Parts: sequence; structure tokens; C-alpha cells
Amino acid sequence: MSSPAHPPHPASATPVSILRLEDGQIESKADSVATEEPLEIQLSYEKRGGVRVTKSISVTMRTPGDDEGLAAGFLFTEGILRNREQLAEIVPVATRPGGRVTGNSVQVRLRPGAEVDLRSLDRHFYTTSSCGVCGKTSLEALRATGALVLAPGTPLLAPATLLDLPNTLRQAQRVFAETGGLHAAALFDEAGTLLALREDVGRHNAVDKLIGGEFLGGRLPLSRSVLLVSGRASFELMQKAVMAGIPLLAAVGAPSSLAVAVARQFGATLVGFLRDGRFNVYAGFDRLQTFDTAANGG
Amino acid sequence: MSSPAHPPHPASATPVSILRLEDGQIESKADSVATEEPLEIQLSYEKRGGVRVTKSISVTMRTPGDDEGLAAGFLFTEGILRNREQLAEIVPVATRPGGRVTGNSVQVRLRPGAEVDLRSLDRHFYTTSSCGVCGKTSLEALRATGALVLAPGTPLLAPATLLDLPNTLRQAQRVFAETGGLHAAALFDEAGTLLALREDVGRHNAVDKLIGGEFLGGRLPLSRSVLLVSGRASFELMQKAVMAGIPLLAAVGAPSSLAVAVARQFGATLVGFLRDGRFNVYAGFDRLQTFDTAANGG
Repeated sequence: MSSPAHPPHPASATPVSILRLEDGQIESKADSVATEEPLEIQLSYEKRGGVRVTKSISVTMRTPGDDEGLAAGFLFTEGILRNREQLAEIVPVATRPGGRVTGNSVQVRLRPGAEVDLRSLDRHFYTTSSCGVCGKTSLEALRATGALVLAPGTPLLAPATLLDLPNTLRQAQRVFAETGGLHAAALFDEAGTLLALREDVGRHNAVDKLIGGEFLGGRLPLSRSVLLVSGRASFELMQKAVMAGIPLLAAVGAPSSLAVAVARQFGATLVGFLRDGRFNVYAGFDRLQTFDTAANGG
Repeated sequence: MSSPAHPPHPASATPVSILRLEDGQIESKADSVATEEPLEIQLSYEKRGGVRVTKSISVTMRTPGDDEGLAAGFLFTEGILRNREQLAEIVPVATRPGGRVTGNSVQVRLRPGAEVDLRSLDRHFYTTSSCGVCGKTSLEALRATGALVLAPGTPLLAPATLLDLPNTLRQAQRVFAETGGLHAAALFDEAGTLLALREDVGRHNAVDKLIGGEFLGGRLPLSRSVLLVSGRASFELMQKAVMAGIPLLAAVGAPSSLAVAVARQFGATLVGFLRDGRFNVYAGFDRLQTFDTAANGG
């Protein structure tokens, strides 16, 4: 067996410039975030009679590297690929015939005669053949959904207000205290008052529940609000915030490269590692009161 | 606006019996885990000409409660539902016409004349109309993929070996130290030796990469191995472990109710909160050496 840990893929971390607030001090620094990019997995197999069929099976947001393993592992654990002998090769392809090979689509080619359990394919979730996220860039796909660029500089938040949000969240969480197993999404106004809180085993679900409740209450867009999530900030969460017009997403954990890119593209503020009296700002510095104020406690 | 935090849904936590090891002491106790169940979201709308169409748009593994908000928030943030006026009602339905209403499918009914952006529907990922996870129970769906019940009692692990796995993982992680943003999946043998490690922004991807690498290397089933994940243990991760024949899944975080159910159904061992010299065992107690041994350090 080879070395347990593959050497890091050169694209697994993405450099970013950030502002860091720690111990009341602010500094501008070079940092890096985990790379997040879409991968489309295509399956190519022969039907009885020898006609070769290619289907787009799945799109997952992943960190580049080990894409062959990812594709094989996904198809195997979903019950579609049964054994090593069925597999001919796994190759990078273009998302559409004749298109450019971007590294974000792989094709798993089965040997002639390898039987695919078509019920397995039917049972599982697959995407349409027109995959927007892979064919275009993810940002183009998001623009196509009608997301608008946010108004700059509003609301303007005091760093001390941000620093206090996790405490407010913790005090309000109920099920988490019981099971330790739920992600939280919380909506605050610009003064740090808690407006809404939802919990779920899936962090995207917690955000959907929260935004859905505001949608049903007729309170969208949430253009003076702050969204705090208990985990990490992915593309998906940043996208949901932008769609709801939320100008500031703060995460207790780390952001991904694509979350940073979406925030910058749409003029949103993205804060990460908001805990223990510190935070990093990855985009939208204009919504934070000058850090001189912060250093003076306010 | 109503109270920010909805009262917890009665089904949001599920009671379980566990064994807890802490400070070298073992106790059997009643505990609870976050409930995880599938929710299918159907969209019903009128085409031009007045013909009503119903499509299954998505299946998400969620914690029950706020399902209306979840469905509305999902459709809005995906760019399918544009405003409150398009919406007629959100109602619980059966997954199939004439079937039983289980609480795991909701239908979002648009008003006549509400225009749906069909390109948006095409662009997004949707499931087939034959949703296995919702129509049958999740466990039935997993049995249908060919997952086998694991051999009881093997391998037999010393609690001290388990307790040491997170340290080994931390020492081996590379990208995490740099970005703080990656989930890890690590494979160990029964003596606690690290065999393979993969990292990704998505924890399911990290597990797919790891299992896929073993699949491509011809080393499946992994029937004497332990899988450690850096986050929480969901249905999806437990399912993947079972598919690869891995008898023990250990998570640094909390497990979900459906992960516990899958482990018990397939005879797997599920360990949660493995950190800081303690852990909980949720299923498959037979693979842990007697805790008398553990208390003596062995």
C-alpha cells in the first residue's frame, strides 16, 4: 500500500487576502482557504445490444484531487458500480460533447458487458444532462438564477456586535444542547438582536428553513440582516444568503474558496472563524466599522 | 414577528441507549440523537394551457419540523420560486399517487398562472419520480442496494486503540492545518495503524475518495478496518461504510438517528463524540473489548 495520506493536491488550498481581528487588533494578511469546485460524474456503459449510453449521474462540490477515487467511491457506495472488473477507465471529459475539458467532469467508463443495475440508477438522485454548474462556471450559473449584487456599505456593523453573535446563538439553541448533533442558522438585525433561529442535521436545511420562514412571512429581501451559521461557509450557503439579499454571512467555521468568490462577486460580506473573540473577514470589508473603533471596544 | 426560535419539534431528537466511556469509566445510559429523515419536495404548477404538472424536485435528509419553511426556502434560494404571490399552499402528500402520507413528502402548489422558470428546473438537480428513499423506508432502500449484514464481533477493538485514533489523524492531516476547512476520512486497521487518509470540503466526498481508492486498489471489502470521520456521522456516511464492508465507523462529532438505525440494522459498530479521551457507542457493542480492560488502560 502507498503512503496513507496522498500529498496535498496543488489546488486543494486557495490563497486569499483577509482582515483578521484578534485580541482587539486588526491586521491585513495573506491566508488560504479550502478549494471548492464542482465535479460532474458521468457514467458510460453498454446497453444490451451494444449501444453505448452516457449519463450524467451526479454533481458534487468537492476539493480537487483524487477525482478518480471520488467517482469510483461514489458509484460503488451508491450501489451502481459493483466490482473492480466492471470498470474500464475513469477519464477527464468535457461536460458537453465537443466542449472544453475543464477538470470538473470525469467519465467512468464500464467494460462492454458490465451490467448496470438500472433500478439503482433510477433509485438514486441524478442530475439532468444539462448541468449548469459544470458547463458554465458556478458564478455564471448563480447569476443566471437572478441573484442581484448587494448595495455596498449597508448595514454597517460594529465588530463588537459581530463578536457577540455566537454567544447569543448558544443561549438560544435548544435541541443542540440535547443532542450535540444539529447545525444552527440564525438571523440577526444590525444591532445583534436575534430575529430567527432554525436547527437541522443539514446546515443547508437549517438555512433553507430560516430563509423559507422569512419568505412565507413576506419579509424578503433581508437587506439589513446578518446570517450566522454554526459550521463552515460553503458555496451553497453563500449562494442562499445572496439569493435572500442577506448582505453578511458569518460562520463559526472556515469558508471555502467558492464561498469567498461568490461573496466578492455579489458584494456580500463573508466572515469566518467567528469564535472566541476573533474573526476573519474574507470579502466585503466595507460593512465593518473601522477597526480603530473596534480596538476601542466599540 | 413571532419568537425567534420555534419550540423544538417533538420529533427533532430521538432517544437511544448508549454506552459511554469517560475518565476510564464505562456506563450504560439513556441519551438522545438528532433525528434525520428524508423529505421529498414536490412542485406542482400549471403549464400554459392549464395542464397541472407535478414534479419531484429534491430529496434532502433533514430533521423533521418546519418542513413548509424548508420547502419554500429551498425553492426560493434555488431560483425556482420567485415571490410569495406565486405560492398557493404547501401540503403534506403521499410520495406516490394513492400512497400513504408519511410526513416525508410535501407538495408546493403554485397558483394558476404562476410562471415557473423551466430553465431553472433544468439547471438544478432533481430526482427521478421514483424516489426510493421516500417511497420505501430508507433502510429498505439501502437493503435494495445489496448491502450485507456484517459478521458480528470482528474485529475486536481495545478502547484505548479507539481513543488514540483522533491523535493519529491530527498528526497526519496536512491541508486542514493550512485552511481549517477540510473534513477528513481516515482508515485504520484494528491495531490503530493509519492505512489511508483523504480530505475534502464535503465529508461524504472525503469518504468516497477513501473508499474509492481502496476499490480501485482491489482491497474491498474492508472487513477488518475502522473508518474515522472528522465531523458528524449521518445516514449517508454510515451507508457508505456499510457498503464497503467497514464494520466500525467512528465520528469525532455526533451521530444522527438514521446513522444509528443503519448501524443496528446491518450489525455495524457506531462510535460518536470520539475526542478528549472519551466516546459513546451507539450500536455494535460486541466489537469493543470489555470495558474492564479499558479501565485498566488496555
